[in-house]
Amino acid sequence: MSASQPALPAGEGASNGELGLVGPIHIVGTGLLGTSIGLALVAKGYVVWLSDVNHEHARTAVGLGAGQLAPSDLTAAQLVVVAVPPDHIGTAVIDALEASPEAIVTDVGSVKSSPLDVISDQVGDDQLARYVGGHPMAGSERSGPLAASASLFEGRPWAVTPDVHSVAAAPLVEALVRACGAEIVRLSPREHDHAVARTSHLPQLLAVLTAGQLAEALPEQLKLSGQGVRDVTRIAASDPDLWTQILLANRDAVDELLDNVQSELVNLRAALDDPDLMSAILAKGVAGTRAIPGKHGGQPMASAAIFVAVPDHAGELHRLFAEIAEIGVNIEDVRIDHDPARDFGLVEVQVEESQATGLAERLTERGWSTHR
Amino acid sequence: MSASQPALPAGEGASNGELGLVGPIHIVGTGLLGTSIGLALVAKGYVVWLSDVNHEHARTAVGLGAGQLAPSDLTAAQLVVVAVPPDHIGTAVIDALEASPEAIVTDVGSVKSSPLDVISDQVGDDQLARYVGGHPMAGSERSGPLAASASLFEGRPWAVTPDVHSVAAAPLVEALVRACGAEIVRLSPREHDHAVARTSHLPQLLAVLTAGQLAEALPEQLKLSGQGVRDVTRIAASDPDLWTQILLANRDAVDELLDNVQSELVNLRAALDDPDLMSAILAKGVAGTRAIPGKHGGQPMASAAIFVAVPDHAGELHRLFAEIAEIGVNIEDVRIDHDPARDFGLVEVQVEESQATGLAERLTERGWSTHR
Repeated sequence: MSASQPALPAGEGASNGELGLVGPIHIVGTGLLGTSIGLALVAKGYVVWLSDVNHEHARTAVGLGAGQLAPSDLTAAQLVVVAVPPDHIGTAVIDALEASPEAIVTDVGSVKSSPLDVISDQVGDDQLARYVGGHPMAGSERSGPLAASASLFEGRPWAVTPDVHSVAAAPLVEALVRACGAEIVRLSPREHDHAVARTSHLPQLLAVLTAGQLAEALPEQLKLSGQGVRDVTRIAASDPDLWTQILLANRDAVDELLDNVQSELVNLRAALDDPDLMSAILAKGVAGTRAIPGKHGGQPMASAAIFVAVPDHAGELHRLFAEIAEIGVNIEDVRIDHDPARDFGLVEVQVEESQATGLAERLTERGWSTHR
Repeated sequence: MSASQPALPAGEGASNGELGLVGPIHIVGTGLLGTSIGLALVAKGYVVWLSDVNHEHARTAVGLGAGQLAPSDLTAAQLVVVAVPPDHIGTAVIDALEASPEAIVTDVGSVKSSPLDVISDQVGDDQLARYVGGHPMAGSERSGPLAASASLFEGRPWAVTPDVHSVAAAPLVEALVRACGAEIVRLSPREHDHAVARTSHLPQLLAVLTAGQLAEALPEQLKLSGQGVRDVTRIAASDPDLWTQILLANRDAVDELLDNVQSELVNLRAALDDPDLMSAILAKGVAGTRAIPGKHGGQPMASAAIFVAVPDHAGELHRLFAEIAEIGVNIEDVRIDHDPARDFGLVEVQVEESQATGLAERLTERGWSTHR
């Protein structure tokens, strides 16, 4: 059960390992994220040690093939990945820095500054030099090792957030990110927390406020719900306990944005009597949607929607996609808007703008009921 | 060009027409909605008259087969459908009540109380008895007759909003709704406006505020954007001018909700230091998402997501859907989350909860890279 290879100092690289990552890698916490990282690393041939305060979870993760139970002597670990709930990250990182004195330690928490503050208060600069925060943008909807997958991180952004003390250690964590198939986004802890406040925590809270107003509506009113309100409120269905930990851990960055929103809300109410002001607020929203990177990470592509009525049974959706493939058009996105009363759905197919009209015509020729 | 059948008093039914609707039906405004209604009615065999302040639009709609140009004498119309921009609805309805003294008049505007106020101020109760508001929940993203389709309304909710004066006239408008294949939702004008304030106007505004905060973000921060923020902000890309008209026309109901949201925002900022309060606010959001009717109009169905990595070219998505069809599982919803950096997408397939695990296993056996 012990490691066959020695730990390497961070950043030096290794002749016998990919980008300096040789293992053993100790994963602390075998929930969805920890177990998925274990599966991805085992698939690449690394020695992975697993531990969890819930021994049953650790044994389950071992059974799934995510690694072996961690030995009692952890000194040989090259990298420790702390994958525990947000409130326990600080303590778990400090424990790991002590138990594995040569290891670089990272974590997978959603917030980076507040755990770093906890850690900085309790360890010296030599220890701090070995801690590099991380945050894979994947998989918060389900939990537990049984939900894990080696492909969970493929193609997903994974923030790597060294602070001034630990920049030299970042390449080893970046090697972990690459080994999991994810894309590195290097940010400072503070930049990261401001980024997720805007791209994740504020959207979460405004989805919650929108949904909260629906909770008070009469059922007859909610019959008018369309795809828009479903899209806006979808993420509000997430676990309140997990999100409470995340939001409180990022309170400063979140509060700054809520302060902005509070001012904008005052403007917005004034704009209900001022068409020019309303138009300007709405135009700023349009600009915001355009600022989100395109789905392929490049320039946002101009796409257009075609709506196709599709009977709501297993084979029909497949037939539609088969015919679109025959026509030779690539689908950028799909949404299924089920008929509220009948057994068929309206399928919204997003394709490149220049191909939309042609595709709609070809589908109509083939007998599909379409509109744009 | 004149009508061959006499107009009928509303609600009496007719031996020779469906539910009392016999036509001619005069459509005022041949944009997306007006032209689509024309196409749906012509397909059912009705005589449809078309007019538009832009004569070119009316001629285009005639060319598309949505009806014939309206005659100069409009007295024989049984039903007039006003499908003009929000700011012009009141005037156009009053004109129609005068030009077609036997007709029931409806409109397709997004807001119902304020046009009714305009009309009530200028016509007597006998005229008011002939006006019944309507609002099909369909098709605001594109505009113009060329975007029209006879199937635009199929299976969509269509609010019918008589006031106390015009209840007797509502059945004729409901016959129109049925002829277009839509589902009737009967509400008072005030109930309707409060309903759309919650289900459409507030979600629009909070999506705009969320997107507005992105407009100020650094590009590096936005690399962390995931599916959540894309979903929340999607509708913020809509036309500011159209939405300015809609929101200002419903200012009272919208302002009431914004007042609620302002109070909740104060709570929310306090909750950043109070986990119990935060948890309660988030739980109310969860309750709101559960209040939205299920996609088939009944109880919301428990569904679960499976993620499948799919190479990003035309044939592969089709192959995935073909195999899911072979396995015999019905797809409830689909989302394509493109890899930000590579040419493959992560496809999120929503299926009935009890089928999710089995489907994931079967797909994995067939060589797909899946996770839940």
